[in-house]
Amino acid sequence: MNDSFEQFQSPFSWRYGSAEMRRIWSEVYKRQLWRRLWVALAEAQIPAGFVTPAQVAELRAHVDEVDMTQAHAIEAEIHHDLMAEVRVFASQCPTAGGIIHLGATSMDIEDNADALRLRESLALIIEAMRKLLATLSAQVEIYADTPCMAYTHIQPAEITTVGYRLAQYTQDLLVDFGELQRVHADIRGKGFTGAVGTSASYRELMSGTHLILSHFQQRVMQSAGIEAFAVSTQTYPRKQDWRVLTALAGVASSLYKFALDLRILQSPPFGEMAEPFGAKQVGSSAMPFKRNPINAEKICSLGRLVVSQVQVAWENASHSILERTLDDSANRRTMLPEAFLAVDEMIAVATRIIKNLRVDEATIARNLAIYGRFSAVERVLMALGKAGANRQEMHEVLREHSLVAWSAISQGAANPLVDQLAEDERLLQYLPADTIRQLMDYSTYVGDAPLRAKQMAKQTLDALVE
Amino acid sequence: MNDSFEQFQSPFSWRYGSAEMRRIWSEVYKRQLWRRLWVALAEAQIPAGFVTPAQVAELRAHVDEVDMTQAHAIEAEIHHDLMAEVRVFASQCPTAGGIIHLGATSMDIEDNADALRLRESLALIIEAMRKLLATLSAQVEIYADTPCMAYTHIQPAEITTVGYRLAQYTQDLLVDFGELQRVHADIRGKGFTGAVGTSASYRELMSGTHLILSHFQQRVMQSAGIEAFAVSTQTYPRKQDWRVLTALAGVASSLYKFALDLRILQSPPFGEMAEPFGAKQVGSSAMPFKRNPINAEKICSLGRLVVSQVQVAWENASHSILERTLDDSANRRTMLPEAFLAVDEMIAVATRIIKNLRVDEATIARNLAIYGRFSAVERVLMALGKAGANRQEMHEVLREHSLVAWSAISQGAANPLVDQLAEDERLLQYLPADTIRQLMDYSTYVGDAPLRAKQMAKQTLDALVE
Amino acid sequence: MNDSFEQFQSPFSWRYGSAEMRRIWSEVYKRQLWRRLWVALAEAQIPAGFVTPAQVAELRAHVDEVDMTQAHAIEAEIHHDLMAEVRVFASQCPTAGGIIHLGATSMDIEDNADALRLRESLALIIEAMRKLLATLSAQVEIYADTPCMAYTHIQPAEITTVGYRLAQYTQDLLVDFGELQRVHADIRGKGFTGAVGTSASYRELMSGTHLILSHFQQRVMQSAGIEAFAVSTQTYPRKQDWRVLTALAGVASSLYKFALDLRILQSPPFGEMAEPFGAKQVGSSAMPFKRNPINAEKICSLGRLVVSQVQVAWENASHSILERTLDDSANRRTMLPEAFLAVDEMIAVATRIIKNLRVDEATIARNLAIYGRFSAVERVLMALGKAGANRQEMHEVLREHSLVAWSAISQGAANPLVDQLAEDERLLQYLPADTIRQLMDYSTYVGDAPLRAKQMAKQTLDALVE
Amino acid sequence: MNDSFEQFQSPFSWRYGSAEMRRIWSEVYKRQLWRRLWVALAEAQIPAGFVTPAQVAELRAHVDEVDMTQAHAIEAEIHHDLMAEVRVFASQCPTAGGIIHLGATSMDIEDNADALRLRESLALIIEAMRKLLATLSAQVEIYADTPCMAYTHIQPAEITTVGYRLAQYTQDLLVDFGELQRVHADIRGKGFTGAVGTSASYRELMSGTHLILSHFQQRVMQSAGIEAFAVSTQTYPRKQDWRVLTALAGVASSLYKFALDLRILQSPPFGEMAEPFGAKQVGSSAMPFKRNPINAEKICSLGRLVVSQVQVAWENASHSILERTLDDSANRRTMLPEAFLAVDEMIAVATRIIKNLRVDEATIARNLAIYGRFSAVERVLMALGKAGANRQEMHEVLREHSLVAWSAISQGAANPLVDQLAEDERLLQYLPADTIRQLMDYSTYVGDAPLRAKQMAKQTLDALVE
Repeated sequence: MNDSFEQFQSPFSWRYGSAEMRRIWSEVYKRQLWRRLWVALAEAQIPAGFVTPAQVAELRAHVDEVDMTQAHAIEAEIHHDLMAEVRVFASQCPTAGGIIHLGATSMDIEDNADALRLRESLALIIEAMRKLLATLSAQVEIYADTPCMAYTHIQPAEITTVGYRLAQYTQDLLVDFGELQRVHADIRGKGFTGAVGTSASYRELMSGTHLILSHFQQRVMQSAGIEAFAVSTQTYPRKQDWRVLTALAGVASSLYKFALDLRILQSPPFGEMAEPFGAKQVGSSAMPFKRNPINAEKICSLGRLVVSQVQVAWENASHSILERTLDDSANRRTMLPEAFLAVDEMIAVATRIIKNLRVDEATIARNLAIYGRFSAVERVLMALGKAGANRQEMHEVLREHSLVAWSAISQGAANPLVDQLAEDERLLQYLPADTIRQLMDYSTYVGDAPLRAKQMAKQTLDALVE
Repeated sequence: MNDSFEQFQSPFSWRYGSAEMRRIWSEVYKRQLWRRLWVALAEAQIPAGFVTPAQVAELRAHVDEVDMTQAHAIEAEIHHDLMAEVRVFASQCPTAGGIIHLGATSMDIEDNADALRLRESLALIIEAMRKLLATLSAQVEIYADTPCMAYTHIQPAEITTVGYRLAQYTQDLLVDFGELQRVHADIRGKGFTGAVGTSASYRELMSGTHLILSHFQQRVMQSAGIEAFAVSTQTYPRKQDWRVLTALAGVASSLYKFALDLRILQSPPFGEMAEPFGAKQVGSSAMPFKRNPINAEKICSLGRLVVSQVQVAWENASHSILERTLDDSANRRTMLPEAFLAVDEMIAVATRIIKNLRVDEATIARNLAIYGRFSAVERVLMALGKAGANRQEMHEVLREHSLVAWSAISQGAANPLVDQLAEDERLLQYLPADTIRQLMDYSTYVGDAPLRAKQMAKQTLDALVE
Repeated sequence: MNDSFEQFQSPFSWRYGSAEMRRIWSEVYKRQLWRRLWVALAEAQIPAGFVTPAQVAELRAHVDEVDMTQAHAIEAEIHHDLMAEVRVFASQCPTAGGIIHLGATSMDIEDNADALRLRESLALIIEAMRKLLATLSAQVEIYADTPCMAYTHIQPAEITTVGYRLAQYTQDLLVDFGELQRVHADIRGKGFTGAVGTSASYRELMSGTHLILSHFQQRVMQSAGIEAFAVSTQTYPRKQDWRVLTALAGVASSLYKFALDLRILQSPPFGEMAEPFGAKQVGSSAMPFKRNPINAEKICSLGRLVVSQVQVAWENASHSILERTLDDSANRRTMLPEAFLAVDEMIAVATRIIKNLRVDEATIARNLAIYGRFSAVERVLMALGKAGANRQEMHEVLREHSLVAWSAISQGAANPLVDQLAEDERLLQYLPADTIRQLMDYSTYVGDAPLRAKQMAKQTLDALVE
Repeated sequence: MNDSFEQFQSPFSWRYGSAEMRRIWSEVYKRQLWRRLWVALAEAQIPAGFVTPAQVAELRAHVDEVDMTQAHAIEAEIHHDLMAEVRVFASQCPTAGGIIHLGATSMDIEDNADALRLRESLALIIEAMRKLLATLSAQVEIYADTPCMAYTHIQPAEITTVGYRLAQYTQDLLVDFGELQRVHADIRGKGFTGAVGTSASYRELMSGTHLILSHFQQRVMQSAGIEAFAVSTQTYPRKQDWRVLTALAGVASSLYKFALDLRILQSPPFGEMAEPFGAKQVGSSAMPFKRNPINAEKICSLGRLVVSQVQVAWENASHSILERTLDDSANRRTMLPEAFLAVDEMIAVATRIIKNLRVDEATIARNLAIYGRFSAVERVLMALGKAGANRQEMHEVLREHSLVAWSAISQGAANPLVDQLAEDERLLQYLPADTIRQLMDYSTYVGDAPLRAKQMAKQTLDALVE
């Protein structure tokens, strides 16, 4: 066990991603899928008389008994991993051993197994997305009405609500969710179509039997539980890998943005939100504010890794010359599992963060009190105009007050703007102090953000039910 | 005019892409879209009594009269391109000038205009794809039955048909076509929701009128001809740009692969296919074979440019901090138009190539005669076995003949394999010479490739009709 | 003029980059370089008797008289831009027209001209970097001693100095500067080596003269002012383009980081630094703090564009099959000029920002007073320990005070920590109040940051002198 | 052992890369480097009296005794891998345990260790490059004079030599070799400069001793065997990672191009070169030509993976906000080891291919006889002109012959051009048949390719000696 630490270990083998996802991309599980495909192949050959139901039953009984030690011993001799697996499987099935892989070529097994792995991995991701979206919608609802500063150019702008901001991430993730579902539904196998996708060998095999080629192919794929592409070469079109990577990169982008926003809001000068931290994580005695957003940072870090693989998948698809070149093989061994494992980790971490998201309402209110008031000045100006004041003169008065207030804030003081305005005789000529104070109440200046946030939460829950 | 050649000119301004696409991404057209949005905005404000129908009519009458000279003169003074355009438009509309842009912020106009440009550009691409797919399907049909060598690892493998190979590209492009349509249908504007997406300013504007905010927003977007995202910030979510770029990169990948295959097949040692060339293009007297696949090479070259922009779009979406940062602005000025113009050019070039594709059936037949025969040896072996011969002995005999034949080929001779086999007494014991010759007929060893090719052509035409 | 705005115009034609850089990448300048190479070629042929000195003189007299109107008219006929230019040039040189391009192939002219353009563009960038580095070093010196908060994880950490932070950017840019210089010095032309780089045609041409091939080649390149690669194909190795793009991407990365840091520091909750803004840019009356870092945002935006082209250059180099394929041609028309123009713009903008950088020392001091004090608590603890206090007890006392102080800060108050400590009897047993106050002076807790900052400034100025 | 195959295993843990490289990137070796740095730190503290020589000796005696089982047990408790290692180390050193890590922060240890790993990995790659370049140069020499077709646009063009083509790869790899050496020489550690790079804590530690901060820092780095950056933050500048990745991507590009060329030349229609294959690999009996270039394909596949990580490194460097954000951490765990391991594998595979490169001179000669002859037609035309024939008439005669010859070739026949010309009375009027045949000898039409190839071989060997 220790031995393995004397050489490189991928963090995706022990650090990132779920156990389920790591299992899907294991050598053992890949071979179990191969075996299921051999069973499906055999079963479909029963009507042609090549195989008996008893043989299929025997194969099925041993379908999960992968024995890597034996397989590697044989592979060391014959240098062919799939044929080695055939031999191990055959040795476990005395009566059916001889008919395993009948008529097939390696890629009929391997590439269909890969399509199954893609689909199962996508299903795991979709399931994780469901939890994430449910968790997130709940928070959207909770904070739909909580006003907070909106920032454009990382500068305080107008006012929004916490829930409406969260609804942005929700909307983005809902698009990703749709894409994942579509790609999942579209996953197709290579089919059982032989070395260059023409099914010539199967047709030859069927000749003289009453089995029709297309019926046989449908039957075996049905039994394998996956549809085949209408046309294929030695492999399924590598555009499929690219679409999968693209769907994953979409999720990575949405979570990256969420995590980056959080990293900034968690910075004490903002201090509006934070990822959860345990009681023990109270931080150093010296620096009580030091709460590093290490989980959000991890999301960003893995996000970069995921998107980098989209280009690899594009290159593979675009450079697969004629009926297939093997320049995809080596990189697919990391591209596919690592992209899935990285997104798996990102979603899990994001879900934990959002579930226990720390929303510091006091600090939010403080920032609003500092920056939010200014955006209410506009309303006062409009009311003064309606009340008969000269707009240009009033504009200048308000500008002066704003500059004085900003100068106070810059020195760390509270925003004195409301009191200033409510005590200025030039304004009191037109509006009573109470009205001025009321107009300066920024907290109601959030438009339909609360409503839209709630609608988005509802739309999301509806999408999850479907 | 000459002046412009004394400084950098983008090839997308004069060399690549259609005039229609170049117009969509022009400064003039952008401003025409702005004006249409101002008209839509004004029209929706009629019920609130802010605007009269006569004013809207006046605006509409001048909607296309963009005057860049005047606009630039004003911009030089006020340093704000959108406000400069407002002034020019206002100067053309004496009675309606004052109500242009009422209640709006710049991005309500600009970002909705961008969404419209995306949608129109996608529509052009989709239209071009229709022609491409129709052209390609016709060729799939024509060559569905024409046998040719299939190559895996760029090595002759088994046999396929020309039409079945073309059907691979068709299937890939059909996936792209579906994606383009989906993205096109999903394009949404930012809506009229103000500086941070909360609609606070519009709500304020509506207060005291009988207009309901959501009705007003629906009306203006309806009039603009585009739906809005359910939630937005200062902009629409930049994920939308990324989805558009991804859809374009999908097309780029399919055409890249097609073009790369063609570049290899057009190489004289293969010589099976070529892009069209005119009578005048006969090549140099000295090198009659020199027909450079410059159009296919251009497709590959532009394809790389397109895919490089996917990363830019991903970065923009992922780094748009909080309610919007402006780090997307400068690069969107080239990313969007150049990606569209490049794909536009790629599709046009591919369509021309495919329409007049040169399929050299004689050379295809010659290559089959050299390499294809070997794949028929398998059939002879099977027939010998059925006829009672010892499989292992016969296998050795066939292997020897194959090696002799390959050696002849390597020296440039024709493949002597059929004659060798049909004259070998050891084989004639079991099979008559005629049968051997018949079994060696590789041209029928194409499985269901012709059928599947035709089905793909039909499926494509059906998809185009929808 | 207006016409051009009715179709797509690249922002690099009018918005970004210097006039000098735009000129280098113009059609006119490219042809002037071609002409210089033809002059160089002719001159080197004088000793062989093919050309007379008078002819060379005639060519040289007309070397800059590019006439695009005439050239395009001819090109419309013969469809070959380089040969069209030969004809225009020839028409301007009655006696020398006939010997232009003697023995050469197109790429001998075009690719050497491209190498010259790369070198000139790099020289412009290097010159701009000199100004940037000089400007930056001056600021490093000025602010070397100014203490400010350092932030890790965007969380206040320990203390650094403004100048030391600026020295980080300086160090990064100095690495880039070295790379640019190295790549500039390494730029090589394709040489005059014919269609596949073997110089076969020139050797044939020289045969029968007393000119030695290698001497002729050296002479022409010397006259062209650039060395040639030792071996070439139809082109120079495309790895050269990639190295150029990589050097540009290095600058882009350093400036991106600087600009991103600035965008955060310019955010009012930080408020420590800002890009310059004019008196007129005072912002809206309502929101006096609204100072958007639009120049820093532009730097980030263009940076993404630059790095996206590195991949394109890598693909071109890696896929240039055998003696050259043309799949680089179309994308090099934008990749090279746009990357140079983008970096040109980025450096110019960064230089302007840094020259007039707004360092808000009052706000810096305020942030230090809030967060910096905590980092001095460590020193008090050490001093208490040396004075005989129980470390564990004192640690708990300090922790309590820190939490109280942090709570005050979170509500927007000033940091009360120093007073708290200097008035706590438990501490005063061991240390006088004055000593406590002195130990809490965080401003001296900056290590050797001032010294290292000044050393970096000096090292930079030394590097600029060389 | 089998257990590990029940979950994902990176191919870089068992399939690709050398054992040496895998060891460098192991958990155990990383901790050994940490320990060496702790020893260096302790040793440098002797003069200050903090540490005794005996303690340092004790630490040194246990420096390699990493005990992962114990370390993981402690980490499970305290959740800090570096501190867990400190405890294990301390438990092995009864007298020195207490002074380990004195004054240091985690990144002082971790980031310097990473710099050491980068440098050692680069050294391995450089060593592998030496072997590759020596092997390649030897082949350049051997085949310097062997004429073969040159291909532009994958179309036969003029003639080159096999050695000259190999010299292209050599020249590219020599550039990469230079870059690797430069980056290797430039690797710098973070130094011992504390949490934000100001050395404040070390300065505090040194105060009261006679040790000067800069001397201490120099001493510890000298002992660690690596220089430090002049300025640092919490880490060394991440630009360093990017430069390393870029150097690796350069090698990846050169080998990708070589491998792609080989994959095309190994295709039977070309058939000029092949990667080695064993006696047992003779291929199937049926398809004796089927020799898949699986090793060259692997090179291309891994090359894509390597270049994809350059973008990740660029993003890390560009987004490391202020004094450091942790968004680099997760992706560096795969980016760095996998890029090194991939390039390691690529070089090893390329070296094996080149060492035993199969150059099929007979096929090369055959292709020359087909395509190369045409390029000699030019010489005949020139000679006819000199002999008084009408150039235009002769040009037409030659063009006709060329077309006839090409038509013969297209049908698979040998090139009849020489005989045609040598028997045409119209030509024999001016030139004797022998002269015509001599002029048509394309094999001498290779310019100075042989000479330049040999010069490149020599230049390479010289570079390796340095």
